[in-house]
Amino acid sequence: MVEPLNIALAGLGTVGSGVVRLIETNAELIARRARRPIRIAAVSARDRTKDRGVDLSRYDWEDDTAALAARADVDVVVEMVGGSDGPALALARNAIAGGKGLVTANKAMIAHHGLELAAAAEAAGVALKFEAAVAGGIPVIKGLSEGAAANAIERVYGILNGTCNYILSTMEDTGRDFADVLADAQRMGYAEADPTFDIEGIDAAHKLSILAAIAFGTRLRFDAVETMGISRVKAADIEQARALGYVIRLIGMAGIDGTNGSARLFQRVRPHLVPIDHPLAHVDGATNAVVAEGNFMGRLLFQGAGAGDGPTASAVVADIIDIAKGEKGPAFAMPAAELEAMEPASSGHRVGSSYIRFTVPDRPGVLADITAAMRDAGVSIESLIQKGDPDQDGEVILAVVTHPGPESAVTEAMRILDGSDSLAGRPLVMQIIGA
Amino acid sequence: MVEPLNIALAGLGTVGSGVVRLIETNAELIARRARRPIRIAAVSARDRTKDRGVDLSRYDWEDDTAALAARADVDVVVEMVGGSDGPALALARNAIAGGKGLVTANKAMIAHHGLELAAAAEAAGVALKFEAAVAGGIPVIKGLSEGAAANAIERVYGILNGTCNYILSTMEDTGRDFADVLADAQRMGYAEADPTFDIEGIDAAHKLSILAAIAFGTRLRFDAVETMGISRVKAADIEQARALGYVIRLIGMAGIDGTNGSARLFQRVRPHLVPIDHPLAHVDGATNAVVAEGNFMGRLLFQGAGAGDGPTASAVVADIIDIAKGEKGPAFAMPAAELEAMEPASSGHRVGSSYIRFTVPDRPGVLADITAAMRDAGVSIESLIQKGDPDQDGEVILAVVTHPGPESAVTEAMRILDGSDSLAGRPLVMQIIGA
Repeated sequence: MVEPLNIALAGLGTVGSGVVRLIETNAELIARRARRPIRIAAVSARDRTKDRGVDLSRYDWEDDTAALAARADVDVVVEMVGGSDGPALALARNAIAGGKGLVTANKAMIAHHGLELAAAAEAAGVALKFEAAVAGGIPVIKGLSEGAAANAIERVYGILNGTCNYILSTMEDTGRDFADVLADAQRMGYAEADPTFDIEGIDAAHKLSILAAIAFGTRLRFDAVETMGISRVKAADIEQARALGYVIRLIGMAGIDGTNGSARLFQRVRPHLVPIDHPLAHVDGATNAVVAEGNFMGRLLFQGAGAGDGPTASAVVADIIDIAKGEKGPAFAMPAAELEAMEPASSGHRVGSSYIRFTVPDRPGVLADITAAMRDAGVSIESLIQKGDPDQDGEVILAVVTHPGPESAVTEAMRILDGSDSLAGRPLVMQIIGA
Repeated sequence: MVEPLNIALAGLGTVGSGVVRLIETNAELIARRARRPIRIAAVSARDRTKDRGVDLSRYDWEDDTAALAARADVDVVVEMVGGSDGPALALARNAIAGGKGLVTANKAMIAHHGLELAAAAEAAGVALKFEAAVAGGIPVIKGLSEGAAANAIERVYGILNGTCNYILSTMEDTGRDFADVLADAQRMGYAEADPTFDIEGIDAAHKLSILAAIAFGTRLRFDAVETMGISRVKAADIEQARALGYVIRLIGMAGIDGTNGSARLFQRVRPHLVPIDHPLAHVDGATNAVVAEGNFMGRLLFQGAGAGDGPTASAVVADIIDIAKGEKGPAFAMPAAELEAMEPASSGHRVGSSYIRFTVPDRPGVLADITAAMRDAGVSIESLIQKGDPDQDGEVILAVVTHPGPESAVTEAMRILDGSDSLAGRPLVMQIIGA
């Protein structure tokens, strides 16, 4: 057997401990597939004494990640410290500058600094890999950059945040409202104490920006992802959607609008209505799923566990095995310098159907005001459902589905209605995905 | 830009023409992702004059595939001739022996001769790749051998034949019977004039044997795949299954039974009942889907177009791009000599629930005979549905679902009933997949 690949692990939270457990459990199998053993040379974390359920005594301990990255006996540093900047970024820069390969599950760091790190890795001739940063255990980065490599990707979209999908599908199953289900999810550990990153769509936006760069060969533009979370989705929306043949999912979607000189990068994370005959409509619980549509392969779907120590460790170690086999191609499937700097698209130019939920006072004339605004903005209504009885606040839910048309017309209708006393609250607009 | 990768295409049917079209259409993109251009050096097919919808005049023509494989200016031969033996196999052996890489979509050839070809390719130091041989445009071979590389795969199963899935899901949607839907599918070109390979499960068995070798690191055993097709599935079975909360799909399934010294390779293609909340239950039409369950990643699903010139060409060219990037690892994820020779498992040892459909004469005492046989064989009945009215042949359908138990007990019950005048025809047994 040839020389082992020596790795150093920085950060021993649930994912880091999972990586240790995986490498120990499947050691023989990994050595056969990687054509050489994977050896943990050293580990580092904040607290040496904490019980992590794995025996770390056989590995060298470094208190300092800089010392870890500087070790001469390390080929690859596995960064599982977390956070977009700070110690994680310092370690990543350090490791690459020192000629080590870098594997990370850190979506925030890659979304913010992926281009810089990719360029540095290429310059240093080392691998930078982050399969675990997007959709946990699903090999979607490999699937897009290698499996779908022969295709011009037209669109990539999916369910990228397990917490949101758990909340939405539980609301769907139980009829309970958002705040209630979130509180439960927090109690059970499915949602963080501060759930902002998840429920406001930021985590999904991190992942989407990475997928978009790989799918379209464009420079990362996390800053340009139009993002809305799920906190305004009501149980009543889910009920109306179901009556219309849809479920509600938080979808991250990216595509290229226009062609050649006028091409723009479209990236959006928002709750969408998904037709029940679409594969994403059956993705329940904390599962993730990504759809890519290519000009030859058609529609491809990847689905699996989007988080958790086992699935995430599976993706981290797959990257390590690739490096052990000699793979060190560019991180975003083509050299960083060749990635196209593309301006963000305006979503107003997009054409599609929308769902608009109004909360209105229970009095005559409201429907006339709303439909007049829609008419004046050029929005054509396909269906309108008004629930018979006012809710506990004396308000009525009015759900409108539009015929396909420019999204800008819907925005204009909302502008006309802004401040109208026919509205008891801000309307919620959600796009409808085609089947 | 570095030297192009020079390829030769043998066979210009729909897939071969699709490969030419793809390489021409996406040439620039492919060169960026492969880090070098892919150049078609020469082509070969039976009939030079046939109009294939692509302009072949710019490529050298060889009448003889041996001459094609012998060209000094060719790095990789793409075999799209078809057939498990004969010219395809001769070409494959020739190309590899001559130091060329080989890419093929030929599942029959790989199922029968994959081990020999893999060993030859390793000895010659060239790549052998066949992503397109399994599940068309879905990168499932890459997904299993690289994406899931860190995992011990516990089970791999899926919908591997688009023709059968089209027929079963059309029967489901329309209530029509098998022969009727097959005839329509043949008229529309969704099924071959001689559909045996598809509807009898042989095509799916080819693919399953390849998936199993990669997932479990075992030697190919196509001969040991227990295979039953869909021709005996009736519209009434689909109706009963639906009433019980299932759909019927032709499933190829492989796994390892037992451990270490007593480990056996289980491979079976059969129609199964799939619970409606299982992701495979929503795979309709000609779509393929593969599920792999690993000890760390959990359940992973790949879904997409299983056939057609575009998707198949997408997989063929993905393999070519990998080779252009220098990838020439062993064809079955580990060297052919290391693949384990594992004896086939007996399905009788498996434990699960079964659906049994009896066709019985419409007279008293039948139910007593059947339930007595089940009792004597130790089969525990979970539910039993007898349709009220006899069909046009004066026969009644009786559908039984068993509690989980050894499959051998069901086989024994069928043995007891064999020849009984309480049966108007041979019963159909289908396994039920757990959710």
